[in-house]
Amino acid sequence: MKKAAVFMGSINDMPVVEKAINVMKDFGIDVTVRVLSAHRTPDAVAEFAKNARKENYGVIIAAAGMAAHLAGVLAAHTELPVIALPLKNKALEGLDALLAMVMMPPGVPVATVGIDCAQNAGYLAVQILGTGDDSLMDKFADFKKKQYEKCLEIDKEAGAKYNS
Amino acid sequence: MKKAAVFMGSINDMPVVEKAINVMKDFGIDVTVRVLSAHRTPDAVAEFAKNARKENYGVIIAAAGMAAHLAGVLAAHTELPVIALPLKNKALEGLDALLAMVMMPPGVPVATVGIDCAQNAGYLAVQILGTGDDSLMDKFADFKKKQYEKCLEIDKEAGAKYNS
Amino acid sequence: MKKAAVFMGSINDMPVVEKAINVMKDFGIDVTVRVLSAHRTPDAVAEFAKNARKENYGVIIAAAGMAAHLAGVLAAHTELPVIALPLKNKALEGLDALLAMVMMPPGVPVATVGIDCAQNAGYLAVQILGTGDDSLMDKFADFKKKQYEKCLEIDKEAGAKYNS
Amino acid sequence: MKKAAVFMGSINDMPVVEKAINVMKDFGIDVTVRVLSAHRTPDAVAEFAKNARKENYGVIIAAAGMAAHLAGVLAAHTELPVIALPLKNKALEGLDALLAMVMMPPGVPVATVGIDCAQNAGYLAVQILGTGDDSLMDKFADFKKKQYEKCLEIDKEAGAKYNS
Amino acid sequence: MKKAAVFMGSINDMPVVEKAINVMKDFGIDVTVRVLSAHRTPDAVAEFAKNARKENYGVIIAAAGMAAHLAGVLAAHTELPVIALPLKNKALEGLDALLAMVMMPPGVPVATVGIDCAQNAGYLAVQILGTGDDSLMDKFADFKKKQYEKCLEIDKEAGAKYNS
Amino acid sequence: MKKAAVFMGSINDMPVVEKAINVMKDFGIDVTVRVLSAHRTPDAVAEFAKNARKENYGVIIAAAGMAAHLAGVLAAHTELPVIALPLKNKALEGLDALLAMVMMPPGVPVATVGIDCAQNAGYLAVQILGTGDDSLMDKFADFKKKQYEKCLEIDKEAGAKYNS
Amino acid sequence: MKKAAVFMGSINDMPVVEKAINVMKDFGIDVTVRVLSAHRTPDAVAEFAKNARKENYGVIIAAAGMAAHLAGVLAAHTELPVIALPLKNKALEGLDALLAMVMMPPGVPVATVGIDCAQNAGYLAVQILGTGDDSLMDKFADFKKKQYEKCLEIDKEAGAKYNS
Amino acid sequence: MKKAAVFMGSINDMPVVEKAINVMKDFGIDVTVRVLSAHRTPDAVAEFAKNARKENYGVIIAAAGMAAHLAGVLAAHTELPVIALPLKNKALEGLDALLAMVMMPPGVPVATVGIDCAQNAGYLAVQILGTGDDSLMDKFADFKKKQYEKCLEIDKEAGAKYNS
Repeated sequence: MKKAAVFMGSINDMPVVEKAINVMKDFGIDVTVRVLSAHRTPDAVAEFAKNARKENYGVIIAAAGMAAHLAGVLAAHTELPVIALPLKNKALEGLDALLAMVMMPPGVPVATVGIDCAQNAGYLAVQILGTGDDSLMDKFADFKKKQYEKCLEIDKEAGAKYNS
Repeated sequence: MKKAAVFMGSINDMPVVEKAINVMKDFGIDVTVRVLSAHRTPDAVAEFAKNARKENYGVIIAAAGMAAHLAGVLAAHTELPVIALPLKNKALEGLDALLAMVMMPPGVPVATVGIDCAQNAGYLAVQILGTGDDSLMDKFADFKKKQYEKCLEIDKEAGAKYNS
Repeated sequence: MKKAAVFMGSINDMPVVEKAINVMKDFGIDVTVRVLSAHRTPDAVAEFAKNARKENYGVIIAAAGMAAHLAGVLAAHTELPVIALPLKNKALEGLDALLAMVMMPPGVPVATVGIDCAQNAGYLAVQILGTGDDSLMDKFADFKKKQYEKCLEIDKEAGAKYNS
Repeated sequence: MKKAAVFMGSINDMPVVEKAINVMKDFGIDVTVRVLSAHRTPDAVAEFAKNARKENYGVIIAAAGMAAHLAGVLAAHTELPVIALPLKNKALEGLDALLAMVMMPPGVPVATVGIDCAQNAGYLAVQILGTGDDSLMDKFADFKKKQYEKCLEIDKEAGAKYNS
Repeated sequence: MKKAAVFMGSINDMPVVEKAINVMKDFGIDVTVRVLSAHRTPDAVAEFAKNARKENYGVIIAAAGMAAHLAGVLAAHTELPVIALPLKNKALEGLDALLAMVMMPPGVPVATVGIDCAQNAGYLAVQILGTGDDSLMDKFADFKKKQYEKCLEIDKEAGAKYNS
Repeated sequence: MKKAAVFMGSINDMPVVEKAINVMKDFGIDVTVRVLSAHRTPDAVAEFAKNARKENYGVIIAAAGMAAHLAGVLAAHTELPVIALPLKNKALEGLDALLAMVMMPPGVPVATVGIDCAQNAGYLAVQILGTGDDSLMDKFADFKKKQYEKCLEIDKEAGAKYNS
Repeated sequence: MKKAAVFMGSINDMPVVEKAINVMKDFGIDVTVRVLSAHRTPDAVAEFAKNARKENYGVIIAAAGMAAHLAGVLAAHTELPVIALPLKNKALEGLDALLAMVMMPPGVPVATVGIDCAQNAGYLAVQILGTGDDSLMDKFADFKKKQYEKCLEIDKEAGAKYNS
Repeated sequence: MKKAAVFMGSINDMPVVEKAINVMKDFGIDVTVRVLSAHRTPDAVAEFAKNARKENYGVIIAAAGMAAHLAGVLAAHTELPVIALPLKNKALEGLDALLAMVMMPPGVPVATVGIDCAQNAGYLAVQILGTGDDSLMDKFADFKKKQYEKCLEIDKEAGAKYNS
């Protein structure tokens, strides 16, 4: 099975990004974690991206806040799909990171998820790797079914408590 | 090879969305086009999504403007990765569609590209299908190389014309 | 008298949404509470909406945050008026939910109230049901009068304390 | 059957608002059109609103741009449900009107539809009046079915033309 | 000397609005405080505004949050200048109130100050009343001079502490 | 009677700002027009402001776009009330100018009107000068009455044409 | 004298960016023009930046729209000051580019000018190079004086035409 | 070596702005700190700016929030490069200050850094002064290298802890 890499711009992002890491590990995916900044360590980022496919990676998650270039820099150097996870920072409610990530030029897309939605970055990585791995996609289909049932239980309890 | 589906909410979106269709056809992907609204024809959308994986689809693109629910409704009903393409409408510069698409709840991600960036929806579909198809990924790597060279030529011409 | 249904995407929304429930119960309306996600449990949502009118519901409130599709999915499947209550989430101050709800395509409107304004969702439901129920509308007219008087008392006290 | 009133702040808004009027007339609703400004003719607006219920109106649509107070002023003076239609003006893409309308204080809601979505203001009025009028609600259910079928035809044509 | 009136939509706004009241009292202006909502008590607001000039008021401050119509409603019913003070509420950082106040239609302006900038509402009232009262304008000129000197002292202390 | 001054940052703003000038001239106010930039000609702006009161000016209008500092610079140098007219420029829909003008620090307010609402800058100047000039205020009250009647006529015509 | 480099992401940006080039040439600066994308040709961008100082460049301008990473990528690879010129694109009024450029992480600043304000990118480059070149700074001081005088002439003409 | 000046509008801004001061002192730059408001003490600001170059300053940082004119006022009066540091205030997340600073008119640029990014204001000042001072630029290049190495260490530790 192909591996996943998770990049974040700063170790301070770990409490949020960890959820993406855990989602993928729960699905049995081999995860590599890198704390590298597109601006402070551009060469290390580029080097990883250039070799990612032949090192058997299948997808890369890039989490960053503010003028969040990490996903774009990775996408510039690899043919692999890159998932962009914009992070909320001290100002502008994360809108800066979202726009800095999603509005990529033609030919170099990134797959953007919601602001601070680290779990979804993980689930999307599972779906993308699942495109070439039927048993992983089966697991994801299973997860969706369980999620459905769990929701229905909560709904039942709430109805019992709040219905007229 | 797995197929791709392209959904759009209205036939008026075709001039923009067509670019996504053409990108995928250029890479030899078998494309199905559906013009269905999440709000006007919800059952037809749900039915397609539920059967998409077993009908051999590998990825779905959903293009919509305004309160753009199409990607989310598809993602709710399928385990396949769904690419969300927010479209600019008459008001709010497409910010409404972008936010309505990207901020999905945990467990049901969509892979969002930039506002009106239809080509990137197509290229991202290529990359996602390429995760399970090495020759498709090779083609995409090739495309990136050619894109690089084409850019350098333009740079050279501009330098000749504008340098002091 | 027709019943009202209140949907919310997550049980975590209850502290806000409860105010809508209580407003309606105070007016003697029979309220059904459902905690269902448009994205995690789409079929349960659709099923309810399809049968809502013949089960004697007259109005549905849908509360959701982020890419808030719940109101739109309900509106897609029912002819009843749907009230959309956008909720503030961790990012973007609720603007994401507001835009994801209000900008519906022609033919499938929802009646949107303010961000986190759960009470108003309840009052609007009272007004809508009151359109077909004169005694309920009389009660709402009464409520408006009492509200007017209560405001005047507060004004009087403040004047006594703060006027030069 | 109850009547509907349509207010707009300026005669210049007619090309957009006319769509709401036509939708309601198509459903056989008796429509009164008023061109009155909340700021230039506040007394005429208040007077209409105070008498609206006893003059057999069931719903009021208020269309306005910029600091759009028309819906709020009407809602302040009537117990009837008021539908707010924010209009795009020369600046700010209609966001000013949307926020000026939707964020009403507790106890005085308005039912807001999308920016410039005049048709939806009309359809929502139909649904609200339909709450107390089964044959009108039947007509709206019918409209939804026809809308569904019309969409499917467009989808079919597009598939024939664009599928691989 | 002409009097000033200060309106606020809710008694909860007092901690912010009080600063405007105090500024005016410090300049010896006779201040009337009203806690009235444009939406819950529209007639009381209109009545005050219609009589304000002949009751010897010279300026009115209106403080409100969300869909802040209070200033506009007052301006609709009086020829006196109305100062609009937008308040920050639980969502949207006060942008809703700012836009709902400032974007008035031609012929009915309000004089808007910054979000939550209650002191400036007070100072602007002083300046407006000072237009017809030279001794009040002299006091304001004096205040500006003292403000200048006080700033220079702070600057001096900071220089002593932080200069290289 | 006191005079009014109208500043604009660039002669290109004249087509919009001219409406403010004309409104004031229609009310018989003596108007001085200055085309001066807060950034290119700061000393000329400051000099005017410092002498404005003793040169018998009663109010100053400042129209500017983008990082619109003109109103603030004038307010910094004069005790007279300054009306800020934010102009829409090529980007950001005028929101940049609005925020750059309205959010002034305590002690130095400006009276902001809507984006591109030049007429309202003129009317507000009339109201402010009217605070110290009863016959001018009478004229403004008159204008409001005529405006009311003119609106009612338009309403009547529209009713005749569009009512069911 | 040190040279300046001007980067733009696409040849389509030339009509705007050309103004920056011309400003610098007018001041006698030796300008190199590169049309290179941070995402399509990252290595060529990085290579230039790494060698820029020793090739006698003193400042670099980077113009880009959307998720505008060009300035950040250059700043990551050089110790020279980088001027960021955000460009307005088809959506979001250039706010995306502005935020994607200005919100850089600590240690890697860029000097951002206004959206589409290409001339200012040129003037700022002049000022920065002037820091180490007194005769260039003298020229800029001269330019400011002439600009001042030119403005005063326009002001005079306007006064003659528009004053009461 | 040339000196740097740091302006802030209020002493309350010191906890943020201090970081800029410290960065510059760490690089051995002689720093002058001024706490002066563009609106409350405009003459003191102008006087400093007019003399700054001949007093041997090479760069000025201006930090301000809300309608942040400080940078623009300084830039209006000096030919030196001015760095604008927008500060987040109680409302609008600092977007008001950012737009009030960055969107300067042609001929009077300021070099804007991110909201509350005081360190970057300091680093940019270092780079600008370094343009005319090779040993300072060498120090900055050194700082970048150390920053790179420090990042790699953090990355290594994180990998050891979080990799599968």
